Amino acid sequence: MNFGMIRYVLGWVLLCEGALLLLPAAVSLGCGESAVWALLGAAALCGAFGGLLVCRKPKNRVMYQREGFVITALAWIAISIMGALPFLFTGDIKNPVDALFETVSGFTTTGASILMDVEVLPRGLLFWRSFTHWIGGMGVLVFLLTVLPMTGGHAGGSHVNLMKAESPGPQVEKLVPKVKSTAAILYGIYIALTAMQIVLLLAGGMTAFEAVTTAFGTAGTGGFGIRNDSIASYSPYLQSVVTVFMILFGINFNVYFLLLLGKFKKAFSVEEVRWYFGIIAAAILFITFDIRTMYSGFGEALRHAAFQVGSIITTTGFATTDFDVWPMASKTILVMLMFIGACAGSTGGGIKVSRLVILHRTFRQERRRHLHPSRISVTTMDGKVIPPDVVRTTNVFMVAYVLIFFWSMLLISLNGFDFTTNFTAIAATLNNIGPGLAQVGPTCNFAAFSGFSKLVLIFDMLAGRLELFPLLLLFTRDTWRRF
Amino acid sequence: MNFGMIRYVLGWVLLCEGALLLLPAAVSLGCGESAVWALLGAAALCGAFGGLLVCRKPKNRVMYQREGFVITALAWIAISIMGALPFLFTGDIKNPVDALFETVSGFTTTGASILMDVEVLPRGLLFWRSFTHWIGGMGVLVFLLTVLPMTGGHAGGSHVNLMKAESPGPQVEKLVPKVKSTAAILYGIYIALTAMQIVLLLAGGMTAFEAVTTAFGTAGTGGFGIRNDSIASYSPYLQSVVTVFMILFGINFNVYFLLLLGKFKKAFSVEEVRWYFGIIAAAILFITFDIRTMYSGFGEALRHAAFQVGSIITTTGFATTDFDVWPMASKTILVMLMFIGACAGSTGGGIKVSRLVILHRTFRQERRRHLHPSRISVTTMDGKVIPPDVVRTTNVFMVAYVLIFFWSMLLISLNGFDFTTNFTAIAATLNNIGPGLAQVGPTCNFAAFSGFSKLVLIFDMLAGRLELFPLLLLFTRDTWRRF
Repeated sequence: MNFGMIRYVLGWVLLCEGALLLLPAAVSLGCGESAVWALLGAAALCGAFGGLLVCRKPKNRVMYQREGFVITALAWIAISIMGALPFLFTGDIKNPVDALFETVSGFTTTGASILMDVEVLPRGLLFWRSFTHWIGGMGVLVFLLTVLPMTGGHAGGSHVNLMKAESPGPQVEKLVPKVKSTAAILYGIYIALTAMQIVLLLAGGMTAFEAVTTAFGTAGTGGFGIRNDSIASYSPYLQSVVTVFMILFGINFNVYFLLLLGKFKKAFSVEEVRWYFGIIAAAILFITFDIRTMYSGFGEALRHAAFQVGSIITTTGFATTDFDVWPMASKTILVMLMFIGACAGSTGGGIKVSRLVILHRTFRQERRRHLHPSRISVTTMDGKVIPPDVVRTTNVFMVAYVLIFFWSMLLISLNGFDFTTNFTAIAATLNNIGPGLAQVGPTCNFAAFSGFSKLVLIFDMLAGRLELFPLLLLFTRDTWRRF
Repeated sequence: MNFGMIRYVLGWVLLCEGALLLLPAAVSLGCGESAVWALLGAAALCGAFGGLLVCRKPKNRVMYQREGFVITALAWIAISIMGALPFLFTGDIKNPVDALFETVSGFTTTGASILMDVEVLPRGLLFWRSFTHWIGGMGVLVFLLTVLPMTGGHAGGSHVNLMKAESPGPQVEKLVPKVKSTAAILYGIYIALTAMQIVLLLAGGMTAFEAVTTAFGTAGTGGFGIRNDSIASYSPYLQSVVTVFMILFGINFNVYFLLLLGKFKKAFSVEEVRWYFGIIAAAILFITFDIRTMYSGFGEALRHAAFQVGSIITTTGFATTDFDVWPMASKTILVMLMFIGACAGSTGGGIKVSRLVILHRTFRQERRRHLHPSRISVTTMDGKVIPPDVVRTTNVFMVAYVLIFFWSMLLISLNGFDFTTNFTAIAATLNNIGPGLAQVGPTCNFAAFSGFSKLVLIFDMLAGRLELFPLLLLFTRDTWRRF
């Protein structure tokens, strides 16, 4: 394990966070809030710690997959701890575990909150909360790769291991040969889409502050809002803009790159995206039909159905209505969407559509094998054979996922809440969604859990965002041996 | 597909069922019940249909895996339909779907019931209900293999494909070179253990009828009782006998064969069985501690904890107490045990301990791969390398399992029951347990579900008992092509 490199990259991550904290500090300053000092203080601490860590350059700059995973896991823990400081400094959140929960929920784009009333928060902190979604959506290490001259000494592409560890999906591909350019293209698309949404929200009458924070929450598929009723009190137009952009941010960003290159045919034939839209359409249709009598008309039912389906499958977690009162069949569909999640290579969480497509294909292949044991068959996706390695890691991912799910459920069941609350609380955190059902439904929050349960949920949010293995590797003894 | 052979074996299965129906008919006759005519009528119909199907011998006697799967699936559907007739003939169950549910629940050793009051049933039907558990536990085709001179014309061992399709577990091995002898040994062990339990129950003061039916329910890990309160009103001694035998019937029967051969060291080192006992011990300890204040003392808490853990992990489903009122953590553990299930090669259901051991090993292997990508590592069990084929089918099994679970859950959610009821109803049927939580808890039953939901649950019980693929193959168009 290359400890020198771990220290060095962690230092840069903290410096980066310090710089990013200046933005909410500026907002706070503009609003004349005292929270500006809390934000500046946290920024200064990030700068100090980061500076200490980067002052000595590591001799050996090689990073293998293990370093990529460990750096990513530690980086996310570090930015979460430092990012929680402003909440503690202002005193808006008094319990350190609660502050950490809120920040991890932000960076992992979960959007689960322990705050009863967000409207009393200073604007600087509201901005920071939403900004963590935006930073976490595309990834802090991906960001680092775009801005820093981290010339690696290794021909095998050391830096791609950072990107692989942080980007979601069973297969992470570079769009262009250079990692740095790939990261820059991804962030470019991300910024452009966010800017488009801000403009459309402004056009609908939102204030600049509302538009920016809502766009951050949408872009990162996070779900923190600046109002207690989430998106419910905004106009149908604004809700529709959010619906469309949630779904857009759940698409594999490679598709946007293909569109930019003018490869329209290829872009529209990506199988994962076709499945993604198919699932969305089917879910909206069914739920609209199921809830039609609960709203004033078909149009309103469709709007709420589309919003919730988009919000849950992309793991955003915004709400326009209390879906916990919907009929059980609709709620079951929403719970299923929680697990499906968005596309790989998007800012969304969950298991990812492409993983499910791969699993579905291997299942079909197995049925064929039972019928014709001697016939050789391969599974393909987008016209290419799915490499056995990818099938294997996808299967192992599912195993790890189920293990973490059940252990977490057991640990938080000590709190004594009902089965539905526990099940959907884990589903909502491990898939980075935010609200679940029953006591963690859209009108409730996670404040009632014990500190221990919150730590379990914090682990789940991080494990979900980093797709399990980076975090699990931290708890493997072998990882910490020098070799 | 060898349709001639399918017809022929199905015929024998029905003849076999006709003969088995004579036993409850005899019980009914002895008790002077009119139900004897219902049972004899069903037996006669089995004989007539069976006779028609076997009268012409098939020319081609080769059975490949696909024939094994299809025959098994069809045989289980056929015996369930014919086995439901006595309930309809006596009028004790009026709705055909309900009668089918009860019979499938019997043969698949689930033990979920739609009857509000079982104590009013004629003894002949009570005997038949429990007897279906015993028949289904070891398998009707395995039974057929022991008694019929089905000399296959195929050197590759046609008959092993029947056994593979019906016996649970990721790997089905013959104990001795001949399939027929293997089947006979398995049934021999099964009968001996059942007889031992009957003797011990009689020694505890049960009547012969109670002892036999209770032993049938235990041996098949079924769970149908002849009293409305299941096992709750029996003495602590009798409850303990049932506890021990439930756990014994959940052990891989290969272990008993090893014991018979005097290979004690090998028998005690089987990894699956060690895990099985480890999980049981851990669960009992935790639950005893968790429920200690609910009962008069540590001893009583331990007795109830041991009984329920044994009942659930072996997927029997007997109850001595209403565990739906236990603390959430204990209930969560029981739900987890529902999924774990018993050992492969036992009469129990669920995912099976060995599958979970295999999955756990592949997960550990993957962690090692992340640390040392170039090092070659293999996964072993009982000192032997787990074949890649077994790992693959285990993974695909899990995928199919999750797919069936979620689709079933969606379909029964149309009934409008709560999440916990739906979730545990599927868990209890797909894992062949019987009772779940909430509205399908140990004091309630499945009567409230709609006919459609019951059909879904019937599918799940059969799919669970036959380990998914035989039943899924029936719904694959390719299966029905002649080739």
